[in-house]
Amino acid sequence: MATPRKIIIDTDPGQDDAFAMLLALGSPDELEVIGVTAVAGNVPLARTTLNAQMVLELAGRADIPVYPGCERPMVRSLFTAEYVHGDSGLDGCDLPAPSAPLGEKHGVDFIIDSLMAAPPGTVTVCTLGPMTNLAMAMVKQPAIVPRIAEVVLMGGGFFEGGNTTPAAEFNIFVDPHAAHVVFTSGVKLAMVPIDCTYKAILTPGWLAELRTVGSNTAIQSAGMAEFYQRFGNEKFGTDSYPLHDPCVIGYLLRPDLFGGRMCHVAIDLVSPLTAGMTVVDWWNVTKKPPNCMVLRDLDNDGFYALLLERLARLP
Amino acid sequence: MATPRKIIIDTDPGQDDAFAMLLALGSPDELEVIGVTAVAGNVPLARTTLNAQMVLELAGRADIPVYPGCERPMVRSLFTAEYVHGDSGLDGCDLPAPSAPLGEKHGVDFIIDSLMAAPPGTVTVCTLGPMTNLAMAMVKQPAIVPRIAEVVLMGGGFFEGGNTTPAAEFNIFVDPHAAHVVFTSGVKLAMVPIDCTYKAILTPGWLAELRTVGSNTAIQSAGMAEFYQRFGNEKFGTDSYPLHDPCVIGYLLRPDLFGGRMCHVAIDLVSPLTAGMTVVDWWNVTKKPPNCMVLRDLDNDGFYALLLERLARLP
Amino acid sequence: MATPRKIIIDTDPGQDDAFAMLLALGSPDELEVIGVTAVAGNVPLARTTLNAQMVLELAGRADIPVYPGCERPMVRSLFTAEYVHGDSGLDGCDLPAPSAPLGEKHGVDFIIDSLMAAPPGTVTVCTLGPMTNLAMAMVKQPAIVPRIAEVVLMGGGFFEGGNTTPAAEFNIFVDPHAAHVVFTSGVKLAMVPIDCTYKAILTPGWLAELRTVGSNTAIQSAGMAEFYQRFGNEKFGTDSYPLHDPCVIGYLLRPDLFGGRMCHVAIDLVSPLTAGMTVVDWWNVTKKPPNCMVLRDLDNDGFYALLLERLARLP
Amino acid sequence: MATPRKIIIDTDPGQDDAFAMLLALGSPDELEVIGVTAVAGNVPLARTTLNAQMVLELAGRADIPVYPGCERPMVRSLFTAEYVHGDSGLDGCDLPAPSAPLGEKHGVDFIIDSLMAAPPGTVTVCTLGPMTNLAMAMVKQPAIVPRIAEVVLMGGGFFEGGNTTPAAEFNIFVDPHAAHVVFTSGVKLAMVPIDCTYKAILTPGWLAELRTVGSNTAIQSAGMAEFYQRFGNEKFGTDSYPLHDPCVIGYLLRPDLFGGRMCHVAIDLVSPLTAGMTVVDWWNVTKKPPNCMVLRDLDNDGFYALLLERLARLP
Repeated sequence: MATPRKIIIDTDPGQDDAFAMLLALGSPDELEVIGVTAVAGNVPLARTTLNAQMVLELAGRADIPVYPGCERPMVRSLFTAEYVHGDSGLDGCDLPAPSAPLGEKHGVDFIIDSLMAAPPGTVTVCTLGPMTNLAMAMVKQPAIVPRIAEVVLMGGGFFEGGNTTPAAEFNIFVDPHAAHVVFTSGVKLAMVPIDCTYKAILTPGWLAELRTVGSNTAIQSAGMAEFYQRFGNEKFGTDSYPLHDPCVIGYLLRPDLFGGRMCHVAIDLVSPLTAGMTVVDWWNVTKKPPNCMVLRDLDNDGFYALLLERLARLP
Repeated sequence: MATPRKIIIDTDPGQDDAFAMLLALGSPDELEVIGVTAVAGNVPLARTTLNAQMVLELAGRADIPVYPGCERPMVRSLFTAEYVHGDSGLDGCDLPAPSAPLGEKHGVDFIIDSLMAAPPGTVTVCTLGPMTNLAMAMVKQPAIVPRIAEVVLMGGGFFEGGNTTPAAEFNIFVDPHAAHVVFTSGVKLAMVPIDCTYKAILTPGWLAELRTVGSNTAIQSAGMAEFYQRFGNEKFGTDSYPLHDPCVIGYLLRPDLFGGRMCHVAIDLVSPLTAGMTVVDWWNVTKKPPNCMVLRDLDNDGFYALLLERLARLP
Repeated sequence: MATPRKIIIDTDPGQDDAFAMLLALGSPDELEVIGVTAVAGNVPLARTTLNAQMVLELAGRADIPVYPGCERPMVRSLFTAEYVHGDSGLDGCDLPAPSAPLGEKHGVDFIIDSLMAAPPGTVTVCTLGPMTNLAMAMVKQPAIVPRIAEVVLMGGGFFEGGNTTPAAEFNIFVDPHAAHVVFTSGVKLAMVPIDCTYKAILTPGWLAELRTVGSNTAIQSAGMAEFYQRFGNEKFGTDSYPLHDPCVIGYLLRPDLFGGRMCHVAIDLVSPLTAGMTVVDWWNVTKKPPNCMVLRDLDNDGFYALLLERLARLP
Repeated sequence: MATPRKIIIDTDPGQDDAFAMLLALGSPDELEVIGVTAVAGNVPLARTTLNAQMVLELAGRADIPVYPGCERPMVRSLFTAEYVHGDSGLDGCDLPAPSAPLGEKHGVDFIIDSLMAAPPGTVTVCTLGPMTNLAMAMVKQPAIVPRIAEVVLMGGGFFEGGNTTPAAEFNIFVDPHAAHVVFTSGVKLAMVPIDCTYKAILTPGWLAELRTVGSNTAIQSAGMAEFYQRFGNEKFGTDSYPLHDPCVIGYLLRPDLFGGRMCHVAIDLVSPLTAGMTVVDWWNVTKKPPNCMVLRDLDNDGFYALLLERLARLP
């Protein structure tokens, strides 16, 4: 059996971040989560750190350390999204306060130290929120860039536009400069934009199936999902809503469920109308060399089957 | 029977502009073309002026005057698209040199004078190219703005992105400042972006039908369409390609064939990545008041049936 | 004796514009004012048009026609400066309503037609306000550009910064896009920025001298100057304040009173902090080819002696 | 006797940085240099780190640790200035390779740890190069901001324009985003722009005096100054050139030698023409609250007397 792939999850939970973490934790044969770094985004840092710890404990993995990272974006002021996730960021579930201590480093340093200590090309970084921690690590210690196996991020949008402004998706909008640093770094990069995650539709039927699993993880995560879905109901007038972040882990586990292409992607940093937009050259009209695998298609049934199967493995 | 609606066609022909003109000329019961103004865009002004004259003569309407307008955009340098339309702008047909004299005014002044002379709310302006002439008219004589019945324009894109840069469609990209002037003027506005026109697919079957009409207009326009289609074949790898500009006239004739919604639309003027992008707030996330009817859906069969029927009325 | 140089004065009076007009009108041996075009700027167009007429009548030159031009900038909304010039734009004097009719053309068309009718290189355009009219003329009819003898403008600032924002001077700030059109046109260009005009200090002693001239023009212009000076008193805490616009005419009459150098000048159009700034490459660090004679030094005594002498020639 | 003020010197030596360090090291009664952090700027990080060590050893202060910081700006690519400083950054002197070991932390962490360990308000940060290290520290650990006694920086320009582009001074141009982070942080801030440092003219006479001191430090620093001056000779055609960075230390030692005022200062991040410009609202036209003491005047004789006196104290 192959060695599992080492990953760092950089996250701002957020209900859909929680699903991503659980999907990874339920897949120990394929993925080894060597640490979780928290970042300000959906809610402030103190809350995302706490939430990350609670999700790990829910999955029985309090042994994985959580490292609090940056509490603000690189250049802009912080913008949060309690209107989507609730004040706690994990509204909809009822999790006990975490008992494990926090990691003893800053999240930025955990990323740097892990990459400098491991053999080159053996650690993958998954970012589920604003990319502040990773970009700060790249600026503080550029030597990490060629050591990263791959960065897989949830963020951006192109043919779907944005979800926070008409042009920008939340994670990139919150810290466009961080995204710029990563996208111009030369690192191997795959991006799961809302064009793809909007196809990861969570339905009431699937939620019912999840509940029948009966485990504590299943029950709590179903609660989270239900709360989270409300926002979708209000915005799109349907009873379904996409789970963005687990697509990142889904892609690591089953790339065959996803379709996309290599494109040049640039981040707008200057226009009041488009700051934080991921300008994806899907048709290669600029003739610039591609710097990112841009995922667009998803086998939704396969994805949710995978998610259910792996969640069911957790306690 | 109702009086036909008076329209000015502002255009940079362009094969698809020619189809738009022919569709209008073939619909005299509904539309009275009071003049055509030419603008630099697909090809330089001297060519678009000549092309507009040749199309009018093809349709037997040399009585309608053509007024040459601006040969450059308001602020930027001119960017043309011979790579799409051929050097003449109308490659694919063989039309005789026009015999009618040019209109005796500058296109900008024809727009101003027509609007100031006619009763308020009786003249509609259709722009099929960069919006330079109309915007220049609005700046030179702001009193025309409340006198315009409606502006219907081909331009922009949102969920389809752009066609000239990843973010910008050709007509708006060429003169984004002109578009900004019109979109911020308060005028009644309807926009046919590539999101809609990409649904106006011209198929080989329809072209064959057009040829069977047998008239000179049908034969020449089929030649134009065939040339124009080649670009689509190269870009999308199909044997079909959309005719953008006739959608503007189609919307005037049969709004029931189109679907859309009122949105706030702003034009980016500042970012090297997104200049000329129409930032359409389709989901109203900015809460800004709508300033434009944004068309997105099209009954393609209905549209091409209409186009065929009206072209067949021409000599 | 040499033929006087033909000039068009494009202006938004404004007390200092009035002084510029009077300086030109008092110098018929050197300058022939073939027309005055008005533009919105210091105050709205209706007022600047009226003011231009009143100043011409004050000087006994109601025979020179005034052509109202643009009432708004090319791209931005209008921003006026009643806080400097008073509600009328000419507060401080008491001039009768003009009796002469307005010119029968739009100011933009007067500029175009004059340049197209006169031999190339024989007409100079002096802009004393936002450059909207001249830029609109260049866009409407680019053939005028090589026919212009020279453009001499009051506007901009560099080592003095701005006077309307920290970075931008009023005339350029109001219509930066117009300035961009002119500065990128290739026309022969001389610029009198506030770096130069701040040296054209109007003192109470000179004003007293002007009053002793005793003519109606002297009395009325002294009244204007006194009102205008108040703003300077408030801003700089002195009893002196510069007359900006007459420097343009002063430069035409006596270039030896001025010092400057050829520089590359670009206009910022994009930053909220610096829009309308004239970015003058005084030290040629960019190595871009110069496009403008930038005036910086002034013999103030010589200038005010000239002004007094010429004003004294008027009725 | 008062306790000396604790300072961190953040620097990219650079000959004038070396003078600033020596001025501080020669003033132990007033200033205690608790550490030096190096940053990429005038030359790459490896060189600025080495140079900082060599200057400390020259002054007999190898006990002060040097911490290498960031080797690139926060968002932009690195731009260096060997054309001013020579390939080594310290061309003109001949210093032995340093023997002391480097500090064991990253420069960013030294800044954070020092500020978190010391009582609030007791440590001043002096930045002599791009502000990357300090801004990175503020983003990584925002809790340091209210603990900083003061930031005094060399950088920017306003009525003098820029020295690297027409609008931007080198230190801010290299990392405008870092400057933005510091200027918007709310920290107590004093800025020594080129408007002030251009008055710190180093003359051949003073250099001759320095040489007569006869110490090794005097001889080596005179060599550096001579090399550095060459650039000034070429640019301004004089035999004098300003020493920018020591003004920062001069201001800490003798604020009475400087004149300035509290202003609002913002950093342009978006325009290709003005990125990195310090937009100083000297006349308070924006009415924004001041965030920075902007120094403009200097008693040059007093300053160079101080510099000579303190250099003479070093071995």
